[in-house]
Amino acid sequence: MANSFGTLFRVTTWGESHGAGIGVVVDGCPPRLKLTETDIQPDLDRRRPGQSPIVSPRKESDAVQILSGVFEGRTLGTPIALWVKNTDQRPEAYQEMAEKFRPSHADYTYQAKFGIRAWPGGGRTSARETVGRVAAGAIARKILRDKFGVEVLACVSQVQALAAKVDVETLNFADIESNLMRCPDPVIAQKMIQLVEAVRSRGNTVGGIITGVARGVPPGWGEPVFDRLEADLGKAMLSLPATKGFEVGSGFGGVTLTGLEHNDPFRMLDGRVRTTTNRSGGIQGGISNGETIYFRVAFKPVATVMHEQETVSTRFENTTLKGRGRHDPCVLPRAVPLVEAMTALVLVDHALRHKAQCG
Amino acid sequence: MANSFGTLFRVTTWGESHGAGIGVVVDGCPPRLKLTETDIQPDLDRRRPGQSPIVSPRKESDAVQILSGVFEGRTLGTPIALWVKNTDQRPEAYQEMAEKFRPSHADYTYQAKFGIRAWPGGGRTSARETVGRVAAGAIARKILRDKFGVEVLACVSQVQALAAKVDVETLNFADIESNLMRCPDPVIAQKMIQLVEAVRSRGNTVGGIITGVARGVPPGWGEPVFDRLEADLGKAMLSLPATKGFEVGSGFGGVTLTGLEHNDPFRMLDGRVRTTTNRSGGIQGGISNGETIYFRVAFKPVATVMHEQETVSTRFENTTLKGRGRHDPCVLPRAVPLVEAMTALVLVDHALRHKAQCG
Amino acid sequence: MANSFGTLFRVTTWGESHGAGIGVVVDGCPPRLKLTETDIQPDLDRRRPGQSPIVSPRKESDAVQILSGVFEGRTLGTPIALWVKNTDQRPEAYQEMAEKFRPSHADYTYQAKFGIRAWPGGGRTSARETVGRVAAGAIARKILRDKFGVEVLACVSQVQALAAKVDVETLNFADIESNLMRCPDPVIAQKMIQLVEAVRSRGNTVGGIITGVARGVPPGWGEPVFDRLEADLGKAMLSLPATKGFEVGSGFGGVTLTGLEHNDPFRMLDGRVRTTTNRSGGIQGGISNGETIYFRVAFKPVATVMHEQETVSTRFENTTLKGRGRHDPCVLPRAVPLVEAMTALVLVDHALRHKAQCG
Amino acid sequence: MANSFGTLFRVTTWGESHGAGIGVVVDGCPPRLKLTETDIQPDLDRRRPGQSPIVSPRKESDAVQILSGVFEGRTLGTPIALWVKNTDQRPEAYQEMAEKFRPSHADYTYQAKFGIRAWPGGGRTSARETVGRVAAGAIARKILRDKFGVEVLACVSQVQALAAKVDVETLNFADIESNLMRCPDPVIAQKMIQLVEAVRSRGNTVGGIITGVARGVPPGWGEPVFDRLEADLGKAMLSLPATKGFEVGSGFGGVTLTGLEHNDPFRMLDGRVRTTTNRSGGIQGGISNGETIYFRVAFKPVATVMHEQETVSTRFENTTLKGRGRHDPCVLPRAVPLVEAMTALVLVDHALRHKAQCG
Repeated sequence: MANSFGTLFRVTTWGESHGAGIGVVVDGCPPRLKLTETDIQPDLDRRRPGQSPIVSPRKESDAVQILSGVFEGRTLGTPIALWVKNTDQRPEAYQEMAEKFRPSHADYTYQAKFGIRAWPGGGRTSARETVGRVAAGAIARKILRDKFGVEVLACVSQVQALAAKVDVETLNFADIESNLMRCPDPVIAQKMIQLVEAVRSRGNTVGGIITGVARGVPPGWGEPVFDRLEADLGKAMLSLPATKGFEVGSGFGGVTLTGLEHNDPFRMLDGRVRTTTNRSGGIQGGISNGETIYFRVAFKPVATVMHEQETVSTRFENTTLKGRGRHDPCVLPRAVPLVEAMTALVLVDHALRHKAQCG
Repeated sequence: MANSFGTLFRVTTWGESHGAGIGVVVDGCPPRLKLTETDIQPDLDRRRPGQSPIVSPRKESDAVQILSGVFEGRTLGTPIALWVKNTDQRPEAYQEMAEKFRPSHADYTYQAKFGIRAWPGGGRTSARETVGRVAAGAIARKILRDKFGVEVLACVSQVQALAAKVDVETLNFADIESNLMRCPDPVIAQKMIQLVEAVRSRGNTVGGIITGVARGVPPGWGEPVFDRLEADLGKAMLSLPATKGFEVGSGFGGVTLTGLEHNDPFRMLDGRVRTTTNRSGGIQGGISNGETIYFRVAFKPVATVMHEQETVSTRFENTTLKGRGRHDPCVLPRAVPLVEAMTALVLVDHALRHKAQCG
Repeated sequence: MANSFGTLFRVTTWGESHGAGIGVVVDGCPPRLKLTETDIQPDLDRRRPGQSPIVSPRKESDAVQILSGVFEGRTLGTPIALWVKNTDQRPEAYQEMAEKFRPSHADYTYQAKFGIRAWPGGGRTSARETVGRVAAGAIARKILRDKFGVEVLACVSQVQALAAKVDVETLNFADIESNLMRCPDPVIAQKMIQLVEAVRSRGNTVGGIITGVARGVPPGWGEPVFDRLEADLGKAMLSLPATKGFEVGSGFGGVTLTGLEHNDPFRMLDGRVRTTTNRSGGIQGGISNGETIYFRVAFKPVATVMHEQETVSTRFENTTLKGRGRHDPCVLPRAVPLVEAMTALVLVDHALRHKAQCG
Repeated sequence: MANSFGTLFRVTTWGESHGAGIGVVVDGCPPRLKLTETDIQPDLDRRRPGQSPIVSPRKESDAVQILSGVFEGRTLGTPIALWVKNTDQRPEAYQEMAEKFRPSHADYTYQAKFGIRAWPGGGRTSARETVGRVAAGAIARKILRDKFGVEVLACVSQVQALAAKVDVETLNFADIESNLMRCPDPVIAQKMIQLVEAVRSRGNTVGGIITGVARGVPPGWGEPVFDRLEADLGKAMLSLPATKGFEVGSGFGGVTLTGLEHNDPFRMLDGRVRTTTNRSGGIQGGISNGETIYFRVAFKPVATVMHEQETVSTRFENTTLKGRGRHDPCVLPRAVPLVEAMTALVLVDHALRHKAQCG
């Protein structure tokens, strides 16, 4: 069950970097929703490699096909199968990976677990697997928008030490998409882009932070105890390749405040219960309180660098390995739609769960 | 399904702060494991309120009873039901909670979700629910220790801005338990304790950070894609009350490094594949690599303070509320066994999943 | 996960024949439902041993306690824990069971699976486990009645070769409860009772068939493909001790008809789509069609007989075993509330699933 | 989650009768198993329409492609995606189905549930969905055979009133495949074939019974309480289209025996615990006892007949409908590999579950 996510809105992904393609099955989608490939393709294009000079140059069109679950332009309520063919396959570019474990990649751990691995392009460990998540997430975002009035957004808020200030209440899609970095602050964005270009020219890579936002979530989504909204969001984000941390609301910074400083006072506003601050990040006791949900996700620097590094061979001898060919200096702009997708998957699932028990 | 956790080693908790007690059912435990209440009680005693001057003074003995699943001192392989009776119930101390939503508690969100809530002591939202997790976690820790040679530990590493340096390779139980704070650095621990006492005397509260460690996990535990080990650990930690963040290995700090700096080189050592650094935190591609697993969890300051705060009544009018009576200035020392318990639950589940597919 | 049932309305049972008692945790119950022990106890009384001369004479009061999940007489939406203490424990009556495997019981298979078993009274294999199911089922029946207008009934329709004709459209509770056998045909019921008394006097046992009925289920409950309504009902019934078969609608008898004879014609009636016959048993393609759902469940004769039988000892030597003491000649009347309970658990679960996706 | 089956060996099917094809994702397959399309195609060929004069004449090649999860001829332990394209699509042959609900099909219930349906060929309700199950089941059978020495077989044992006697201990593949009916008794098989041909010539259809067998299952597979082996087998069979009943071991016939007659005595034989009779059907208390597992599944007659029948239109008016064109007089021979597939899926899942907890 490792390749499925969600309880009622359940996605199952399959596929490797260099096989027939990447696919996803979406089970539990409400029926009669208008859906065509054009609802999904834009998010895939935002995730696609080769979209700009600061990301991976792999050449994939990532064209999605709906194979089932839609009839005459509307969802049937039965499984929606989506498929994106792999087109840019150059296994020869990866031949050395057959014999050596790339440092800080999953080559060694997959070998240790399964006793076998699809080494071309990293196989199932490749970030290419996330194509399926973005495709499924596009459906989830559409449901949130059309059925619940919920908007999900994400943006790059930090690259290495370069941090932008993000106002989660006013963040909007146009500002995010106004530059290659998908950082809403255009001044910082330019600095980030320059940083990435410099790092790339040195054959190196950088990491950073993505901020995720959900606005319009009504009070009451989320579950007590184990499936708290922040727990499921945290799991969703930490299931993304290269993530090392997740914080919601005040996060790690909140630990320096006292309780009196940290608490969000309740006030009535326009007939609704509101909080006058939002250190809770829109979630209290695992359940949404009607305020904006926001969180931050830490991405480590991309592991593939164009430098010689110490490693071990598949014959368990010390050796070295140097990345060749294509090299992705910064995964962040392409990870923005991924964070949005996983956020949407979590929220739709909780929306349906809430409806089932309390609706 | 919100009140169950785990796939193969599955725990289900029940109970409210002021009902008949707190219980947990553990399903999937291997048979023939030696088990008595004495294997479980010590961890409950470490979580218990009233154990020291720096934690909640609620008087609970928290004595656990095994109601099923054990016969002649050994597990049967069928569900183990554990029960801890509530003894210190003073609903009158909470009467005001019936009429007002406590700021940054879950009173309002539970009301919004369910249209009803057990207000005495917070009912199901009370941290008292975690009694069941600690009890189940004690069984999981025993399995890890006896069957897999895995040691799980946690300690307080930061209170407000006071941070201790924790060496995850040498951290040990005796050092952690050597002081009331459960911080292995005795000098910083004393400062932390003084800080908490000062904060308590002002009717205020503090938060901080707990570091979790698992040593001896073999390479290969964890699953590709969604149920990555760090994703499940993150979910486990973020399902604990008052948590706001989780980071594994290099965490948020790792984003300032380049790929070349961040990568963990592989080397053969004593015939095993090892890494010479451990920024990965013992997990690569969601699967353990044999190095020590470590992570950090941010806890916000306790929400109940002895000051008047703005809030809203259950009749949706603005009002104020002031905490009365018992007051827990710092949840961290009592949360240490909780972090251990959730870590153990995740690891046992993954150990069994690994055995099922790859064993 | 073997001890849980259901997806959204999820019950987890625990307990052995001779431990502290039998319990069940019900997770996913809608909030604000009126609930007290008096809603549950009547069904437990119908399942209870010792209620009449034709069933097991074990003396259990089977008094249920609600330990959590209810506040001021209403459900909270959080787990409802129910507990029934064991009172009539006479392990000495079972001493021989420690050393010999009872034929056609689960003693040997539990030993083979787990390498350990709780031999007093059969432990977890005892039909006493079903106490938890009946208790949870009483809640499910109440939800069906109060929220959905669905009525669930079951009755004994055959004992050995003595068969009653049951009209599933007019079957009612009063007729079922009018005699000790819970057979709605009073003439056949008397013959059944005489048969059981005769069999009991010879130290032997009988089996038979229970008919289950659900009336008022709206069109649309059930799921395509795997979780068809009849598949989930079948699993529920076949999970009951001593069951050997399940058939829905025309069942095994339907195989002798041609398609033309078997098909249920559709007709409009009072503005609703109806079928003029109901060989489908109220389910088509796994989904309810609005007609009465009905099915039959085969129960083998009780395995414990007062005769010497060939068997094998726990030391794997041929031996013989003769039942002693208490002896249940016919489980059928006590199984009626069990069939109702499992039917109700399946239907509530599907009602909530339908609401989540299509509501 | 309606379109997934299994806990640890989990299959998810997708696709409609007239879409891009039928697919299945198999998650949880052990790694390093040799697997190519040639391991799967034979079972698909046995399920394929058009294979003989007594089954559906739809012309499908049903050629399977492995899209993921296999590398250099061995399974990776990651999801195996299988795809069978639809080729014989003639939606015009079904135009009338757009406007009328076919009697005893799922057209009306799908419309009632989802408010939409893919009417060409029945869409998701078509038995064509079972292609995915057979493909996944072929992998499961291979695992059972190669890793556990378990053999799974099924055969037609009754058509209408024509019943063959099946010896579950000696049943073998060659005998089953020796005739078009897949009935091991060649004399009865010829009568069955003549019966089907006569029924087909009259535009009518027949049902019957399939017997399923699993030999070599070791003692200990299956779970207490809810996920009993017979409960999961029953669910699996009742999830197949057109099934109306399931019985294991003595089944419905067993209710006429007394306990003394029905019990299976234990005896030591060749150092193993055996039963001298097998009315239990190889399962006791939900767990395999090492004897041959056998059961019977009732299939109603195919609903599509070439006669005018009363029905209702999608505009909710009374009308009539007459089947046209292709017509499948008897689904039984093609359902044999389906029963085998579902049996294998259940057994592999339980084998892995047993290994996880008790291995």
